[in-house]
Amino acid sequence: MTESVGTLLSQINTPADLKKLAIDQLPQLCNELRQFIIDELSANPGHFGASLGVVELTVALHYVYNTPEDSVVWDVGHQAYAHKILTGRREKFATNRKLHGICGFPNPKESEYDAFIAGHASNSISAALGISVGQTLDKSAKRAVAVIGDGAMTGGLAFEGLNNASSCRNNLTIILNDNHMAIDHVVGGLSNYLVRINTSKRYNSFRSKLYKFLLKLGLVSNEEAGRYIQRNNSLKAFISKQHTLFEGLSVRYFGPIDGHDVINLVKILQDIKDYKGPKIVHIRTKKGKGFKPAEECATEWHAPGKFDKNTGKRIVPEIKSDQPPLFQDVFGHTLLEMARENNQIVGVTPAMATGCSMTYMMHEMPERTFDVGIAEGHAVTFSAGLAKEGKLPFCNIYSSFMQRAYDNVIHDVALQNLNMVICLDRAGLVGNDGATHHGVFDLACFRAVPNLIVASPYNEIELRNLMFTAAQPNMGPFIIRYPRGRGYVSNWHLPMQVMPVGKGNCVKDAVTDPKVAVLTLGPRGNVALNAIKKLDAGSQDKMGLYNMVFAKPIDSELVLEVAQRYKRLVTIEEGALAGGFGSAVLECLSDAGISIPVHRIGIPDNFIEHGSQEELYAILGMDADGLQKTFNEELQKS
Amino acid sequence: MTESVGTLLSQINTPADLKKLAIDQLPQLCNELRQFIIDELSANPGHFGASLGVVELTVALHYVYNTPEDSVVWDVGHQAYAHKILTGRREKFATNRKLHGICGFPNPKESEYDAFIAGHASNSISAALGISVGQTLDKSAKRAVAVIGDGAMTGGLAFEGLNNASSCRNNLTIILNDNHMAIDHVVGGLSNYLVRINTSKRYNSFRSKLYKFLLKLGLVSNEEAGRYIQRNNSLKAFISKQHTLFEGLSVRYFGPIDGHDVINLVKILQDIKDYKGPKIVHIRTKKGKGFKPAEECATEWHAPGKFDKNTGKRIVPEIKSDQPPLFQDVFGHTLLEMARENNQIVGVTPAMATGCSMTYMMHEMPERTFDVGIAEGHAVTFSAGLAKEGKLPFCNIYSSFMQRAYDNVIHDVALQNLNMVICLDRAGLVGNDGATHHGVFDLACFRAVPNLIVASPYNEIELRNLMFTAAQPNMGPFIIRYPRGRGYVSNWHLPMQVMPVGKGNCVKDAVTDPKVAVLTLGPRGNVALNAIKKLDAGSQDKMGLYNMVFAKPIDSELVLEVAQRYKRLVTIEEGALAGGFGSAVLECLSDAGISIPVHRIGIPDNFIEHGSQEELYAILGMDADGLQKTFNEELQKS
Repeated sequence: MTESVGTLLSQINTPADLKKLAIDQLPQLCNELRQFIIDELSANPGHFGASLGVVELTVALHYVYNTPEDSVVWDVGHQAYAHKILTGRREKFATNRKLHGICGFPNPKESEYDAFIAGHASNSISAALGISVGQTLDKSAKRAVAVIGDGAMTGGLAFEGLNNASSCRNNLTIILNDNHMAIDHVVGGLSNYLVRINTSKRYNSFRSKLYKFLLKLGLVSNEEAGRYIQRNNSLKAFISKQHTLFEGLSVRYFGPIDGHDVINLVKILQDIKDYKGPKIVHIRTKKGKGFKPAEECATEWHAPGKFDKNTGKRIVPEIKSDQPPLFQDVFGHTLLEMARENNQIVGVTPAMATGCSMTYMMHEMPERTFDVGIAEGHAVTFSAGLAKEGKLPFCNIYSSFMQRAYDNVIHDVALQNLNMVICLDRAGLVGNDGATHHGVFDLACFRAVPNLIVASPYNEIELRNLMFTAAQPNMGPFIIRYPRGRGYVSNWHLPMQVMPVGKGNCVKDAVTDPKVAVLTLGPRGNVALNAIKKLDAGSQDKMGLYNMVFAKPIDSELVLEVAQRYKRLVTIEEGALAGGFGSAVLECLSDAGISIPVHRIGIPDNFIEHGSQEELYAILGMDADGLQKTFNEELQKS
Repeated sequence: MTESVGTLLSQINTPADLKKLAIDQLPQLCNELRQFIIDELSANPGHFGASLGVVELTVALHYVYNTPEDSVVWDVGHQAYAHKILTGRREKFATNRKLHGICGFPNPKESEYDAFIAGHASNSISAALGISVGQTLDKSAKRAVAVIGDGAMTGGLAFEGLNNASSCRNNLTIILNDNHMAIDHVVGGLSNYLVRINTSKRYNSFRSKLYKFLLKLGLVSNEEAGRYIQRNNSLKAFISKQHTLFEGLSVRYFGPIDGHDVINLVKILQDIKDYKGPKIVHIRTKKGKGFKPAEECATEWHAPGKFDKNTGKRIVPEIKSDQPPLFQDVFGHTLLEMARENNQIVGVTPAMATGCSMTYMMHEMPERTFDVGIAEGHAVTFSAGLAKEGKLPFCNIYSSFMQRAYDNVIHDVALQNLNMVICLDRAGLVGNDGATHHGVFDLACFRAVPNLIVASPYNEIELRNLMFTAAQPNMGPFIIRYPRGRGYVSNWHLPMQVMPVGKGNCVKDAVTDPKVAVLTLGPRGNVALNAIKKLDAGSQDKMGLYNMVFAKPIDSELVLEVAQRYKRLVTIEEGALAGGFGSAVLECLSDAGISIPVHRIGIPDNFIEHGSQEELYAILGMDADGLQKTFNEELQKS
């Protein structure tokens, strides 16, 4: 192993450089590229396994296609590191996912080679189909390719795209990168189906005999022979008990093909790139290919953090025994604890069992825990069905992915006022995953929907108590949002208590001369408390801090009481300011006819880029220093 | 034909009554039921064609299954009229879709026989799967059935449910009601696929020969014979060049079956109702079955309005020549007009070409108009792909259905700041379709998203001008929402003009002594003007009316100017108050530190039921009388 860039890779700054290589040099380039990724990611953490799996595919695509005139649309950017390295971003690659560095996902703002944005799964077919139809309308010779993993294929959007592909004139190529993994194992009928697709030996030895038999019966002619024997997937399906799902949708199917044989990949792509009409090329790859530990445990090596590239040992940061837990783990442990007591509780997650720590329940109660694959809409409506049958589902979805299930929450849950709990993990700023992953719209969009309760805990203890509260009889639909990362209380594992719905509480009252009251939603309240403690003693006395807990129903009694006692209000939320929690406070004041200055702190009206959570909080004035500054300013005005 | 209820139907008040009939009485019952629907709908308009098509299926389901213990989940309630009539609502059926009457869609609040809500397409498989899994966990003998049309099958949610059906223990039965129609013709690969499924004569005559050949080769054993010959759809697929898409997803397939042979349907459902595991029964029906004109023109007879049941002539209400047009027609004609001038313009609609009047463009420019089927998410992301390739898509989606594509607008459109136009038809209260169809959350949910422009026209002329404005170069993503129904200006077809983005205008200024300013968004402003005109002259003089046009970016300059001149503000919007346009006004005032009483008028925090639009406006105080009353009250306070 070597720290330096390989001799071929070092010459490649654009795909034009790549095209100068002879085809038989490509395997060496792939080795160098793979080694570069291993070197880089061992020091600068990122999404590892997926990118190693598509090294050969990436090289082949840029070797065959004329990017960026031809559009290659990557589905979920986890797999796009090799693509970034080959398209002018090798030297910047050390800044991957860092503040002001390159983005962890394809991003058209960053490079013309990134044909479409790719933070949420399953959009590539629809987007590339649009591009291909546009090209066809223009009678352009340009091409469009979607690269989608089998995990992303479970998303309904991918199916909608696939179903629509045969309805209009286009020459779309879909590369189905089948590694039988999303982050956790892929679930669902489609995935099992892909595994079964195989050109069996039995088929190969049998097809000529059958062909002769068919000829004799007059069921094929000599002219048809090629079509039947070479391409008729129905024949394969029959012989090997497989089915040609894609051809059922009128999308031509090629495969399966070894995705790690770069020379063969190049030849196949060259063969088919100008075939007319929509087509799917099914390649088989291995997540983590070329790095043994990652090949052996793909889930762990999806995004492994730092590791020793020589020993393959992951460098796990030391955890102090009194360190507060991850919110996700509080969720995971509490869910299991509650499920042991209440056998109506079931868990539902769309492909995020590990990320949201539903794995604890899954291991102990596999029959009551449902990973439905990347399918957020289904996760919610399926949970609604379970609720209709008397179960109490805890459906956990990352806030930004929940945008996929907005209608399901409205139509299938809220309208029927079903008893179910929706936990939005990763609500607020998620850090290095950046703009596509920040969960900042949930407060605004769900606050508008009748029947919903929308809450956010101040800390780990409140998360437990909110989960416990949400599970009380006839609560109706109950949303609990909480952020990525660690909380604030190491001694969190206390007996659970029911919280009053729609009630906030006073964290710190003003001692004398109340001036500025801070109304907070969620764990940022702890930072607000720290900010208050940084003020001089006299200022501290004039400040109050109120943990509102509920964005909907908002505790209007508390808001009005506070508004009457203090001179100015500050609201803090980790969400979009337009229509969010602070806006709810304004509505509450306005409806009561009370006038008081309100300073709203939250996410402004632009997309926030990537960087560590702490860096982003600082930029937005939401860290302790920033809040202290605002509090001082408000005190001065009062 | 007769007005009276048939002799069998008149005895049936619950499915228990139905079960008392002998199987050979069922065809007569179907005839009576069909005649009842024709009689009723000729006088009281509703969804006609779909309900006629499933008369036999409905009778068979309630005859075979033990409803309501067994759950029958109807997908899109258009087809559920026969179900309602057989489950205790025959006598109330004349109140269908009317204020305080029965709901046009299955609604669990209305009847225990309505197992799940069904206003938005494609949710039945996910919901019924949840119900079935819940039953399986309970080791219950209850059953769950989803009834889904081939139109709804194009929705990604249906695929997500289907894909997940084989992943967990359940005994779900899916009835695929294949009539090759949604409202317009169904599009997409799946639909074409369904048409091709057929057990051909060739197959039937051939299979025994092939079986013997396979036996000789040792490829099947005698034991396997039944499986191969009876059920192996791969064999069918090969012989008839068909593919077994559903079995590819590990869902057992039965069909196709004649959906109008009620006796055969009963037998088949009795046979399979207790088969373990997920299964799909594919039945073929005819939309409008039994009423010739509806059979011949299914789109027109989807919801035909009143008609003469004897002559089959639709009773089209007389349109006065100076009557204002439907907003949808202004959209449709203007789009075509603009598309003639700008060949980059393309139209995209998810199965609503007729409903949104994109048909005008579709007829003249079929190659530039894309009906993508019931697939809202895809419609948006596909449009985004077109926009990336330099096209200017006008993507038209009903507001309530756009909830399905919230993430697509955020992730695929807004984040990339693409130049495309999203038109939200049916924004606001839609009337008789009720709670599932009111488009009231778009303002709150889209106002939070950076880069979006969100506008609503005051009248038809402004709709044209907004469309024209949105099509100007580099506008970025531009949302235009407008309501169902007719506008206010008969002379609307004027030359188009660019409107300044983020600017409102004064409709009526106060003459002397400004007291109350009304800030409105959208066509309700016309009603507000009428309400002002109903005030006494002195009061009128004190009122101002401002058409804000844009919810985002809001015209903060105008808001602040008005707030400084008047004593009180009233905001009017046809959307949820929480986080909506009025809330934007509050934010604007608060951010500027200006204090003024604001009375916000809009949709309160509960789901609004069905009734005519005018009835609902009156209930909510949003008709001219209600607004006049509020204006008077505000004047008194000022």
